[in-house]
Amino acid sequence: MTAPRSAADVAEWADEADVIVVGFGAAGTAAACEAAGAGADTLVLERAGASGGAAAMSDGFVYLGGGTPEQQAAGFDDSVENMRTFLLAACGPSPDEEKIGLYCERSLEHRQWLVDRGVEFLGTVVPTANGTSPIDGEGLMFTGGENAYPYDELATPAPRGHVVQGGRPGGKYLIRHLTAAALAAGARTSYDTRVDRLVTDEQGRVVGVIASRFGDEIAIRARTGVVLTAGGFINSPEMIAEHAPSVHVTALRLGTEGDDGRGIRMAQAVGARVKRMDAIECALPFNAPRSLVHGILVNRFGQRFVNEDTYMGRVGQAALTLAHGQAYLVVDEEHYAPNWLNVHATWVCETAEELEREIGLPAGSLASTIAYYNSHAEGGNDPQFHKRTASPLKPPFAAFDFRADKFVYAPFTLGGLHTRCDGAVLDIDGEPIAGLYAAGRTTSGVAAQGYASGLSLGDSTFFGRLAGRSAAGEKA
Amino acid sequence: MTAPRSAADVAEWADEADVIVVGFGAAGTAAACEAAGAGADTLVLERAGASGGAAAMSDGFVYLGGGTPEQQAAGFDDSVENMRTFLLAACGPSPDEEKIGLYCERSLEHRQWLVDRGVEFLGTVVPTANGTSPIDGEGLMFTGGENAYPYDELATPAPRGHVVQGGRPGGKYLIRHLTAAALAAGARTSYDTRVDRLVTDEQGRVVGVIASRFGDEIAIRARTGVVLTAGGFINSPEMIAEHAPSVHVTALRLGTEGDDGRGIRMAQAVGARVKRMDAIECALPFNAPRSLVHGILVNRFGQRFVNEDTYMGRVGQAALTLAHGQAYLVVDEEHYAPNWLNVHATWVCETAEELEREIGLPAGSLASTIAYYNSHAEGGNDPQFHKRTASPLKPPFAAFDFRADKFVYAPFTLGGLHTRCDGAVLDIDGEPIAGLYAAGRTTSGVAAQGYASGLSLGDSTFFGRLAGRSAAGEKA
Repeated sequence: MTAPRSAADVAEWADEADVIVVGFGAAGTAAACEAAGAGADTLVLERAGASGGAAAMSDGFVYLGGGTPEQQAAGFDDSVENMRTFLLAACGPSPDEEKIGLYCERSLEHRQWLVDRGVEFLGTVVPTANGTSPIDGEGLMFTGGENAYPYDELATPAPRGHVVQGGRPGGKYLIRHLTAAALAAGARTSYDTRVDRLVTDEQGRVVGVIASRFGDEIAIRARTGVVLTAGGFINSPEMIAEHAPSVHVTALRLGTEGDDGRGIRMAQAVGARVKRMDAIECALPFNAPRSLVHGILVNRFGQRFVNEDTYMGRVGQAALTLAHGQAYLVVDEEHYAPNWLNVHATWVCETAEELEREIGLPAGSLASTIAYYNSHAEGGNDPQFHKRTASPLKPPFAAFDFRADKFVYAPFTLGGLHTRCDGAVLDIDGEPIAGLYAAGRTTSGVAAQGYASGLSLGDSTFFGRLAGRSAAGEKA
Repeated sequence: MTAPRSAADVAEWADEADVIVVGFGAAGTAAACEAAGAGADTLVLERAGASGGAAAMSDGFVYLGGGTPEQQAAGFDDSVENMRTFLLAACGPSPDEEKIGLYCERSLEHRQWLVDRGVEFLGTVVPTANGTSPIDGEGLMFTGGENAYPYDELATPAPRGHVVQGGRPGGKYLIRHLTAAALAAGARTSYDTRVDRLVTDEQGRVVGVIASRFGDEIAIRARTGVVLTAGGFINSPEMIAEHAPSVHVTALRLGTEGDDGRGIRMAQAVGARVKRMDAIECALPFNAPRSLVHGILVNRFGQRFVNEDTYMGRVGQAALTLAHGQAYLVVDEEHYAPNWLNVHATWVCETAEELEREIGLPAGSLASTIAYYNSHAEGGNDPQFHKRTASPLKPPFAAFDFRADKFVYAPFTLGGLHTRCDGAVLDIDGEPIAGLYAAGRTTSGVAAQGYASGLSLGDSTFFGRLAGRSAAGEKA
């Protein structure tokens, strides 16, 4: 049940605080830092036994730009306007111009805020890497296809994927620092406490939550605001079927048990508005080792569908949506290597005709695709998809089975509550719901669609901060 | 504003009825027939000056099957199970099994219900037509790709698009009869009355509506239920941007001014759940005259993306989503004819290379596609997309500009309120919202995605009936 409870029906408040933060991941730790830092008595309720959420499973990229010290040290020019131009193109269709604008304007400030809480970055650049997992010593990477078509023609390519330093996985390190900062700021925590529904007063204002703690139902009052930072809905089969069914074929999902959409639903139950519930991100780790990028990805019709050397999160989205999760990576002997996850090729053949037969692709389709691709790749060109690193494929060939039910697609959801930049959760008419705030993947954020690695940690922490301040009663 | 008003804040009820039906299109006329027929004092509120809605703009297909008299007269075998098999495959991913099941089981009964209200059908078959607009004398057509790959392999092809007879456009004729039937059953009407929000009592039950009539705000009480049959949201730019941005490029939209999503939003404002808000239907009238089906459709990469001889609504969906609204129809001289809308080819060239250059497709891409297509079409085959009518294209070539901002794409929305088969509007937890019912494109219906012409009139009238009965207090 996520339906709200009337405050009049609450017999006893088990606890109370100025601000209740629901969920202690990237957005929740940031919100708690700021709410507590603003002087609000802040109580974080986390359903797991520790902070982390999906953020702790991540590699620890934070998408920052506009001329960070790391970008400068590595010799890259960037500006707020350049970053904005890229994100507006990369995070649509229908990008959230307001969130993107503010996120870019305050990117340097947000980096400093993270640094002030002990988060370290490193400026080593691996300019050819498009969002693959960083290896030790790699600190600043192209994580959104900034250096690939068409973005390299729209904006000056600048790497913005800032990898946090100090431990792997980076997300865990980031969360550790932000958790410590939230506690240092005075936030209280209650773990193993799952919030199930909101409590509203007679005017519809959110004044608390109903939670389960060790099997007991408890009510906790919020004097100034509730901040929902409870993750997305990738682990709700029902919500996936109703909103983002393209994901139903994947063998894996990127999220914790908590990413069951409860935060979104309990807000909807008090009239909150959602947007872009169909949007998913899905990075496909096909380009590590990077020699595999030399190959071509084809769909079940034997056709290419994306420039293989762009950001692998864009490749994964394309593979899952445009190719309906049925993709194959065809490489040649010279560039063959097992995938970084030690996945080997499923098929090895002397000719394209033999390979397409083995895979089960339409007769002649792969041979036609390779012949056409090679005819231009000889000159380093790819008039169709503008792969900047095109070069011919020579037999013998091998192919990896990248179908979504066989391979490591790890999608997560991008859609969620429609919030204002200050974290206010909007109702169906676009008016703030009094007392209710949200950030992170419980909301639709900087990436309404599209994506770049580091955007979710980035916008979760940034807008988490704003939501925390708003809930504490300060205007952003 | 769509936020609900508390009944306690209603100073005066301008009118009252047992059942209020909001919107007088296909679903609304059917709901009014049944609510009034069940003995309920039924008041229909319609924002336009007459009944009709988007249904009156349609060609008047009703998707019926399972062995109708028209199917039998035309010599086609069909069964409930065969129809269900087709719809489960054609109306997904994540098809609504419950709605499809009931719709198929009661298809013969629903046909008779329509016939009993004066709606006539005709059994002439045009078996090659896949959902193009009927010409006089065509009465029963393949309108969902039943006779095209892959559906012809999954179920026995049976035409189910039953065209109403007696006038063109057929939708207007259908509405005329159902309007008359609703009035004959005793329904009252108030035109030029736009419902803006719901009225709820202290328990959250829907007990009325707030409407605008000639500039005045009035409250109308519903003693047993409100039925929302207020159309979809294709004419809400804001909702399109938030839920179905793939549509943003089309020059046209199929719907009335009333299809602004208000019915969906006012229900959401009382906690209703929505599903498949991203799903759209978009028929592309490219296959009339039918000789144009001989051509091939290519995307901006010069690649084919669909079997051109399937249902043109499926082709349109593919063109708008998979091809991002950027499609070109390439035909040869022998099969060239202006489009039925008298649209002529934009480009005429002697060779594929010249044509791809003129259109601006990647160098060599169209030539490669045609060469590959022809190599199999010589034998009548299309191993890639399984076009059943494949035959080679011979120069000279012509191409129609079927880009969505240039051509007649007329999308409408399929997503909406999550209702039970009996019309009950469900809340976020899946529980019925007391007093609230819905049908038609205000809801997600038989076609959660995918489509077949006649499904919207079909499910709107069928589930409109059930919703009307439920609101009148009878269990379905």
